[in-house]
Amino acid sequence: MGKATTNIIYSQKFFDVEERNFLLPHGINKKYSIVHRRPISVIFPLEDDKNLYLILQYRHLFGKRILEAPAGHIDNGETSLDGAKRELREETGLEARSWKKIIEYDSSGSVIESHVSIFLARNLKRGTALPEDYEDIKLIKISLEEAVKKVMSGEISTSSTIIGLLLLDKAYKENKL
Amino acid sequence: MGKATTNIIYSQKFFDVEERNFLLPHGINKKYSIVHRRPISVIFPLEDDKNLYLILQYRHLFGKRILEAPAGHIDNGETSLDGAKRELREETGLEARSWKKIIEYDSSGSVIESHVSIFLARNLKRGTALPEDYEDIKLIKISLEEAVKKVMSGEISTSSTIIGLLLLDKAYKENKL
Repeated sequence: MGKATTNIIYSQKFFDVEERNFLLPHGINKKYSIVHRRPISVIFPLEDDKNLYLILQYRHLFGKRILEAPAGHIDNGETSLDGAKRELREETGLEARSWKKIIEYDSSGSVIESHVSIFLARNLKRGTALPEDYEDIKLIKISLEEAVKKVMSGEISTSSTIIGLLLLDKAYKENKL
Repeated sequence: MGKATTNIIYSQKFFDVEERNFLLPHGINKKYSIVHRRPISVIFPLEDDKNLYLILQYRHLFGKRILEAPAGHIDNGETSLDGAKRELREETGLEARSWKKIIEYDSSGSVIESHVSIFLARNLKRGTALPEDYEDIKLIKISLEEAVKKVMSGEISTSSTIIGLLLLDKAYKENKL
């Protein structure tokens, strides 16, 4: 679908900004600016099929604490599962003996490249949380039913937590959890 | 949660990049880079409670056509509903007499600010699509059941289409669609 020339114009810890010129088939030359974000792992630690853990975390973007699943950027050299295990341990102190990836998706179809992997973590063991010095995190045990209600009411409002909870709800109702 | 100084360091049609310095309560000064994306409306045009329209669209980010819901950035001065009506008309040629917002959410809890509104559009009327000159779009009629299967198989893999379809599936099974 045409040749491309590219140019990274801004680079930061969690993302790059690229300006890319595409020559479209009908001769139009179009410049796209694309944000490439580092891939993310999101974790749903399940206590049993009806209860799970979320975190209440202060988010500068919203200026308040929000309820969401533990998550973080995958480090260089890590697989998405490595990143999931590390983030779960750092943010919650939990470790899990059983891991399953339930979905991989892209946050956006254009402008922003951001790949997300969501995992279920079971057979949990409590350890000590090791949050980054700028993180302010509280572990919250919640029923799946209550969490899904908070999606429907808008109290839970970030995409990866919404997708994970809707998939868990669907699996539970289909006796597949 | 501390004072902030801010600086827009890159500005483009669909997003800005901001560097923001936060003074955290325990005296740590931390710089965040944040992408502010223009808000988006996503539309699910329903033919009836079992069938809907998606679009097959070439996406430079993936180098291929992907199946997704009609969507687009909200223009200055538009409400999210105005943007939804315009994008539906431009991308599919469809108009709808009945509109309902089913969810609003944020694509991300950190790094990227991107607000999304998802609408159901019913009582459809066919007009003429007016895609942008760089858009390459094909309208696809599909059953809700088939679309949800494509979410579970990974064939549908962008977040707003996944969230809309999982909510439609949930509403249909609860006789609320």
